[in-house]
Amino acid sequence: MTPASIFVGELFGTAILVLFGGGVCAAVTLNRSKAKNAGWVAIAFGWGFGVMAGAYLALPLSGGHLNPAVTLGLALESGDWPLVPVYFAGQFLGAMLGATLVWLAYLGQFRASEGPFLGVFSTAPEVRNPVQNLLTEIIGTFALVFVIVATGQNTGLAVSGTGVLIVALLVVGIGLSLGGPTGYAINPARDLGPRIMHQLLPIAGKGGSDWGYAWIPVVGPVIGGLVGGGLGMAVYSLV
Amino acid sequence: MTPASIFVGELFGTAILVLFGGGVCAAVTLNRSKAKNAGWVAIAFGWGFGVMAGAYLALPLSGGHLNPAVTLGLALESGDWPLVPVYFAGQFLGAMLGATLVWLAYLGQFRASEGPFLGVFSTAPEVRNPVQNLLTEIIGTFALVFVIVATGQNTGLAVSGTGVLIVALLVVGIGLSLGGPTGYAINPARDLGPRIMHQLLPIAGKGGSDWGYAWIPVVGPVIGGLVGGGLGMAVYSLV
Amino acid sequence: MTPASIFVGELFGTAILVLFGGGVCAAVTLNRSKAKNAGWVAIAFGWGFGVMAGAYLALPLSGGHLNPAVTLGLALESGDWPLVPVYFAGQFLGAMLGATLVWLAYLGQFRASEGPFLGVFSTAPEVRNPVQNLLTEIIGTFALVFVIVATGQNTGLAVSGTGVLIVALLVVGIGLSLGGPTGYAINPARDLGPRIMHQLLPIAGKGGSDWGYAWIPVVGPVIGGLVGGGLGMAVYSLV
Amino acid sequence: MTPASIFVGELFGTAILVLFGGGVCAAVTLNRSKAKNAGWVAIAFGWGFGVMAGAYLALPLSGGHLNPAVTLGLALESGDWPLVPVYFAGQFLGAMLGATLVWLAYLGQFRASEGPFLGVFSTAPEVRNPVQNLLTEIIGTFALVFVIVATGQNTGLAVSGTGVLIVALLVVGIGLSLGGPTGYAINPARDLGPRIMHQLLPIAGKGGSDWGYAWIPVVGPVIGGLVGGGLGMAVYSLV
Repeated sequence: MTPASIFVGELFGTAILVLFGGGVCAAVTLNRSKAKNAGWVAIAFGWGFGVMAGAYLALPLSGGHLNPAVTLGLALESGDWPLVPVYFAGQFLGAMLGATLVWLAYLGQFRASEGPFLGVFSTAPEVRNPVQNLLTEIIGTFALVFVIVATGQNTGLAVSGTGVLIVALLVVGIGLSLGGPTGYAINPARDLGPRIMHQLLPIAGKGGSDWGYAWIPVVGPVIGGLVGGGLGMAVYSLV
Repeated sequence: MTPASIFVGELFGTAILVLFGGGVCAAVTLNRSKAKNAGWVAIAFGWGFGVMAGAYLALPLSGGHLNPAVTLGLALESGDWPLVPVYFAGQFLGAMLGATLVWLAYLGQFRASEGPFLGVFSTAPEVRNPVQNLLTEIIGTFALVFVIVATGQNTGLAVSGTGVLIVALLVVGIGLSLGGPTGYAINPARDLGPRIMHQLLPIAGKGGSDWGYAWIPVVGPVIGGLVGGGLGMAVYSLV
Repeated sequence: MTPASIFVGELFGTAILVLFGGGVCAAVTLNRSKAKNAGWVAIAFGWGFGVMAGAYLALPLSGGHLNPAVTLGLALESGDWPLVPVYFAGQFLGAMLGATLVWLAYLGQFRASEGPFLGVFSTAPEVRNPVQNLLTEIIGTFALVFVIVATGQNTGLAVSGTGVLIVALLVVGIGLSLGGPTGYAINPARDLGPRIMHQLLPIAGKGGSDWGYAWIPVVGPVIGGLVGGGLGMAVYSLV
Repeated sequence: MTPASIFVGELFGTAILVLFGGGVCAAVTLNRSKAKNAGWVAIAFGWGFGVMAGAYLALPLSGGHLNPAVTLGLALESGDWPLVPVYFAGQFLGAMLGATLVWLAYLGQFRASEGPFLGVFSTAPEVRNPVQNLLTEIIGTFALVFVIVATGQNTGLAVSGTGVLIVALLVVGIGLSLGGPTGYAINPARDLGPRIMHQLLPIAGKGGSDWGYAWIPVVGPVIGGLVGGGLGMAVYSLV
């Protein structure tokens, strides 16, 4: 894996992830969509299969992180810090690209709906409380990265494709189980990239981009990813 | 794989795909069906598992494309253009066969329902706008074919069966996330074959076959498949 | 695999299959059940994961048929006709055992509900028409057995466990897509065994066992299994 | 696997299992949760993917039992009784840790809801009848452990990751099919650990911890696990 392949893999992998994830939010919430009101089960599976699609695509190019919190958690063990900015660049730009594709795929539905539309792009808490929201995002991302670190122990799984399925269903599970309070960003790029596009794209009635909340789905996942990665390292030293 | 095995594999594989896909549309929308109103989650999983069943069946015979957009996207890399018409013939005839089996399996439900019935056979947009509808189909098929091309990079996965599962869940994901605006044809054969059968079959109250829209779920997926296949080639040249 | 291991594998495998399948029907339809009204998606996944559990359990003992239609379809190719009655005995007795376990697990819910309760045990058509109902069961079982025969071609998959997952999701797909008209018996043992237990068990208000319909979910799947197995043999001779 | 790795693996694996499982119960039942009323399908998949995540994490450390009933059922064959208390300690403490994390992740939702909240932590029967409830838990755990024992026969599956997927979907299936009467504890640690935390944690309006019922989801799964493990041993001696 070269810096070029890493950048490209993370760019397109994260774009596909956000295309599916933002897409299912659009599908379930906008008017004139066939999936209107399909509910939380649809949202959780849509995001999970987006992770699967993006990670599968990016696996041979970059290892398929698609998430700065995963990159940080894994860097604790690999020590590959110089590559981290390359991962980040691909991830954030990819998330912006994916959010733009959601907008293009649902143009007619945005026009047929009244905003605000931030929920199609980024997360917002049900009960707004910085400490609680941060805690929820830390716990969700901790679970994500801790389990992903196990893939390195279950040798050969990541290569064989079973690891991709397990991580996809892991994300479905996090959505079902830990998504209730904040909408489970658990990924700084997945939240901040689309939030920037929500600010930039010319969508009638889109409402505000809620920049006051934007730091929580960045800082929470970063903390959770480092805790998950660090605990994973400690735990698997016992093997 | 010989031309005969390719034709037969694509014929029966696409028939099974459309049998499951059209079947779940019938199951969810027609009267006197036990699955009436089971919703969009049912539809997305029904189509995805139809892809799984058909591709698994066709894998040893034809590689299991079941979709002209996939065949075109993969031909960009393989250069196997002379076989493309054989794939197409199996795919379109298979889709017609599958749609006929749906009608036979749901005879009583068609009789117990009032039409129009085109939705059991082919796609229609929620907001009718050729440019938007084309764009949605291009994006959905682009995602499908781009990720499928990755299977060639994740060596051995297609053969091992994990690839079949991943592609099946990929199609579930596209349905959940990108199906809202147009019903996600993402496959010219899946849409045009059943539309022809809707025109031909003697179903009371079936309504019109909407030929004015029929070119979009053909042209959109063809463009999306070529873009996905081409981008896949370019991207994986970095590996 | 000996006759003893085949009998035991099919006995317990089919018991687990019917325990899960009848169980989900009880869970969704009876009063005082936490899953009441969970809907058709729950039913389709419950039956599919029952197939997975039973087949996985029976795989090393009997190959995990759990279904006389599968046994017949595969015997066309293997020619192992002398073992067929051993498979059948395990399958029918196992289905009776499984239905009894459903009754024991849901004793309190049966008491809290008003019958009839045949739907927890066996299938019934929404539109009663022998030719149509037979046709639906033939088509569903044909799809099941045709795809299962492909497992023999995708070498090593059945052994590796991926085959078990694919067959499980195939059954989910048949439920979603082809279950609407008749409730998809697609297995003579799954329908007749529990119907016998419905007749025998002392359940207040259970209603009639509908013996006039009982031949259809036996004959339909037998025909469908033979057609699917035969077509599979013919088709894979091209490989 | 050393006692230390076993304890740590079971501790964190069971914590993740209960975090996901308790989490989905909170998500679906508490006010101000985005997944409110997502229904039984969400609950069954949330618990199943929690088993997947926890078992995958614990696999290289402890084999990933996460359940005293599984440990007992497998000890029948392995004879590794001296390690059983180590497994138990990790499992019960892990379940207590997981329940605490659920409380932390859903702090705002607990505050926005009126209790009682025992259902987020532990199981309760719909029809309270000790014999019936015990029977339901025995049958559910019997199915769980019997099928898990088969993993030892399908050589290499547990290692390859496919076994983890199958056990996860098995738990989804048990939830869908056998969860209706008692909420399917099928695991003494999963029920008793969170019940202790329900007693201890300072949650306003939490209601009673229902200690009169607490023995059933311990004794039932223990019996079911021993029966499933013993029958598995007997049955696979035929291979």
